[in-house]
Amino acid sequence: MILYLKIINQRKNRYLSSIQYHIKTFKNYHIRELHIKQNTFKNNSYAKYTAYITVATSILGLYYYISYKNIYALNEKFIPCGEFRVDLKTYNLEEVAKHDNKENRIWVTFKQGVYDITDFIEKHPGGSSKILMAAGSSIEPFWVIFANHNTQEIYELLESMRIGNISKEDAIFNTINDNDPYSKEPIRHKVLKINGEKPFCAEPPPSLLIESFITPMELFYVRNHLPVPEIDLKTYTLELIIEEVTKKILKFEDIKKYPKYTITSAIMCAGNRRSEMTKEKQLKGLNWGIGAVGNATWTGTRLCDILKDLKIKEDDYNHIQFEGYDLDPSGTPYGASIPISKAMDSRADIILAYEMNEQPIPRDHGFPIRVIVPGVVGARNVKWLAKIIVSKKESQSQWQQNDYKVFSPNTDWDNVDFSKAPAIQEMPVISAICKPEQSEIIKVINGKINVKGYAWSGGGRKIIRVDVTNDQGETWYTANLDAEDNNAKVGRYWSWTLWSIDLPVKKELKEMEIWTKAVDASYNVQPENIKNIWNLRGFLCNAYHKIKVKLEH
Amino acid sequence: MILYLKIINQRKNRYLSSIQYHIKTFKNYHIRELHIKQNTFKNNSYAKYTAYITVATSILGLYYYISYKNIYALNEKFIPCGEFRVDLKTYNLEEVAKHDNKENRIWVTFKQGVYDITDFIEKHPGGSSKILMAAGSSIEPFWVIFANHNTQEIYELLESMRIGNISKEDAIFNTINDNDPYSKEPIRHKVLKINGEKPFCAEPPPSLLIESFITPMELFYVRNHLPVPEIDLKTYTLELIIEEVTKKILKFEDIKKYPKYTITSAIMCAGNRRSEMTKEKQLKGLNWGIGAVGNATWTGTRLCDILKDLKIKEDDYNHIQFEGYDLDPSGTPYGASIPISKAMDSRADIILAYEMNEQPIPRDHGFPIRVIVPGVVGARNVKWLAKIIVSKKESQSQWQQNDYKVFSPNTDWDNVDFSKAPAIQEMPVISAICKPEQSEIIKVINGKINVKGYAWSGGGRKIIRVDVTNDQGETWYTANLDAEDNNAKVGRYWSWTLWSIDLPVKKELKEMEIWTKAVDASYNVQPENIKNIWNLRGFLCNAYHKIKVKLEH
Repeated sequence: MILYLKIINQRKNRYLSSIQYHIKTFKNYHIRELHIKQNTFKNNSYAKYTAYITVATSILGLYYYISYKNIYALNEKFIPCGEFRVDLKTYNLEEVAKHDNKENRIWVTFKQGVYDITDFIEKHPGGSSKILMAAGSSIEPFWVIFANHNTQEIYELLESMRIGNISKEDAIFNTINDNDPYSKEPIRHKVLKINGEKPFCAEPPPSLLIESFITPMELFYVRNHLPVPEIDLKTYTLELIIEEVTKKILKFEDIKKYPKYTITSAIMCAGNRRSEMTKEKQLKGLNWGIGAVGNATWTGTRLCDILKDLKIKEDDYNHIQFEGYDLDPSGTPYGASIPISKAMDSRADIILAYEMNEQPIPRDHGFPIRVIVPGVVGARNVKWLAKIIVSKKESQSQWQQNDYKVFSPNTDWDNVDFSKAPAIQEMPVISAICKPEQSEIIKVINGKINVKGYAWSGGGRKIIRVDVTNDQGETWYTANLDAEDNNAKVGRYWSWTLWSIDLPVKKELKEMEIWTKAVDASYNVQPENIKNIWNLRGFLCNAYHKIKVKLEH
Repeated sequence: MILYLKIINQRKNRYLSSIQYHIKTFKNYHIRELHIKQNTFKNNSYAKYTAYITVATSILGLYYYISYKNIYALNEKFIPCGEFRVDLKTYNLEEVAKHDNKENRIWVTFKQGVYDITDFIEKHPGGSSKILMAAGSSIEPFWVIFANHNTQEIYELLESMRIGNISKEDAIFNTINDNDPYSKEPIRHKVLKINGEKPFCAEPPPSLLIESFITPMELFYVRNHLPVPEIDLKTYTLELIIEEVTKKILKFEDIKKYPKYTITSAIMCAGNRRSEMTKEKQLKGLNWGIGAVGNATWTGTRLCDILKDLKIKEDDYNHIQFEGYDLDPSGTPYGASIPISKAMDSRADIILAYEMNEQPIPRDHGFPIRVIVPGVVGARNVKWLAKIIVSKKESQSQWQQNDYKVFSPNTDWDNVDFSKAPAIQEMPVISAICKPEQSEIIKVINGKINVKGYAWSGGGRKIIRVDVTNDQGETWYTANLDAEDNNAKVGRYWSWTLWSIDLPVKKELKEMEIWTKAVDASYNVQPENIKNIWNLRGFLCNAYHKIKVKLEH
């Protein structure tokens, strides 16, 4: 019983991953078993479970103590969700189906669980329209596609909305054929650190990242939002639409007939460095390190040339929307848009790329055509391009409207209004230390250690200086800019800059913190602390990059 | 004698403004008298001065105590420079004239003083070429024009290089006719706070600044670098030059024949908010508050239209240089340049403005033509436009090469290399609190105080959010954006944004600090602290604006 209290104490503010689970784990290491929420103990089954627990903890005693850490770790990964709960009422599918609108409340099922998600609809990071597609029925087929929902965090959230059960038979009936849409994904390089399996999201290790100015395709970070579509070059088409009318359909060869342009451009995910921001205050979202960025050459047709052929007048419209061939379960494609003034500006160097580093674009990076909008957040660089839509309206996709936006540190999921912030387009100035890595042990040579990293700014703004300190800003050392795009024109520096410095280290020092900050051509500089730029989606973590290292003299 | 020691102690690290001076002040309040540097006491005249001092301090005793503060204040303003010093050798003008090159050392005279400035040449903020014009002769005529040199700080600096005297006769002979070139300056509004008389530099009070979205001409900050030229519209010409060849000469009426454009744009001095930065670590330069910014409508001819008529190919050149009609004593005009890609881009909205707020541009703001380069530092918005030069080269003016640039906090006058930083063009994001002002006593009404200010970013980047905190960032409140340019196109928001907020105040609070930070369309945000962006010229002080106020409940 003492142990039980100890566990409760250690894990307060979280659901208690039930003691019953530990009993079963002890017996047969089966994992996906019935879990009980902490407050379950307060209801009428209290006596029954207390009995269970008392017996169980007495038996387990010593064993539990020894294996606690292992069990705890397993437990972190597998919070079962949708298991039958004896304390709740059981409904049939017809009853559930009636709850598909706000008046009647909105219910969904997951396995044997019934959930009232009415009050969560507006807070859904993926947008209310997406989640409403499951109203009155099962949410499971959607989570097969949006497989990033299959996390402890989201299981916990769903269970907090639990109101009942459906029978085992109904649950089986309810499960549609969910042939894995991710079964035909490309093979990826094993060195990539996977942040999300389905959709696939991964980044290279920092030390490899800065080994070359041009990132090899295999090491380029991948941020997919849906399964990778299978596209046959022979049948591929790109549809050009003005408002809702198709004006032209281009085949791959039609696109290649336009003059060929090559640019060197970095692409960065808005979530890059989120893992640092979540330490400040917990966030939902992929736990990106500093590797959600890469720098490549992109070859293709200029978007402005295509638009010129459509005889578009810039003043008549406001946005150019892009849609991909990657589809969600409802058939809705990934989508994004950029302002028309940018799209039609030849100086913006936007291209429909069919080559990456002089090779056909790999499937993970948008085969056969990816829009490259240099200086702009990765999310607008739409892969597997299917449609270009000239419109008065911004893309209405969830990723444009309800996702890639940034709010003040005091905005949370209870008060956020996504319509109040503009979609991220151009990115702010950022830098990161790639060598050494966090917590690394470094040999001091001749009183110095070598520090390396990257810096970048959006909007074509060149990196003009990178400053490094190892005494909290008392002394700033200016780094060498080792590699930059020497062919770039003024205001069109799309590439990253790689920098390094031999940083002087005091003799007696056993460990130290290294900070870096970059300055761009507009003399914008990174903010010092994450705290003041924290935002609920964990985007644009461009505060000073700070790492701690240990020193060997 | 105790008093004497006390004074020494209070003013250590500065030149001792001599005791002899105080004696004379007591007698007749004449101010510009002989001063003695502290180390003078260490040389062979030591005995003589010690006698003086002992007698003087005995007599002055009580009187001095009472009037100390007044004397001190007067003394702050008038550090004489160039007075005859009995402890130094006297040279004649021929001897001085020989010292006009580095081999022989470079000497200049000021009044009766002779100075060896050889080691200072490279550190001269105004560039080495300018100061070298005085080599071997008097620096006085230059300081009549660059009258901002007439400060205690620069007198002290010059005196630290003192090596000798010239005779009174030579000093008179040496003084050329210095009819004040500032005698024909326009009349300015008395509400302006003057930061420099000659050249004239002044800013409006913060509370007035944000009273209207469009700044009235009379309240618009003035930052002149030289005397205001007198220009007759009938004889005014604008010379268009490609490299060194004059291609066209336009009269005022020729410029007006082009299509007429109006933009609304803020202009900001790079030195805005320097007074905060100098508190972090002392700086040279005008002590600007937060008012070195204004927002006006500008009407005129587009620069790109003029350049199109010259049939310039963008790829053949790199820069567009501007020269003003304002001249230094050597006849060299004020000059600056911008990249040609910006100059030829119609989206950059650069105009040769002949109207400001629908009136002819006033003399202080560049009558009859000022180049408006929106989103770019004030220094490139050249007034009294005389020449446009298409060139492969950047402007070689001191203001482009050796002045408006920013370095790391560890760069000082001993190690600065101006060639290592790019000239400031586009400005970073900034904001300021204008109401209340620093140290103001504010009445709390219904638990709140009203806070108002401006925010702006260069490069046409719209202000998308302003956050305000009164608890060091624990809580951030998002301000209302009250006034912005609703007609601006995407990426072309040249105007400032005025914001306000009713900031909640805790009941018991007697005083508090208010911070503000703005975010622009690239999601660039201001850095927290001035310390980490401190730079030796005191430019681009865009850290959080922080003020302390007292509260009345």
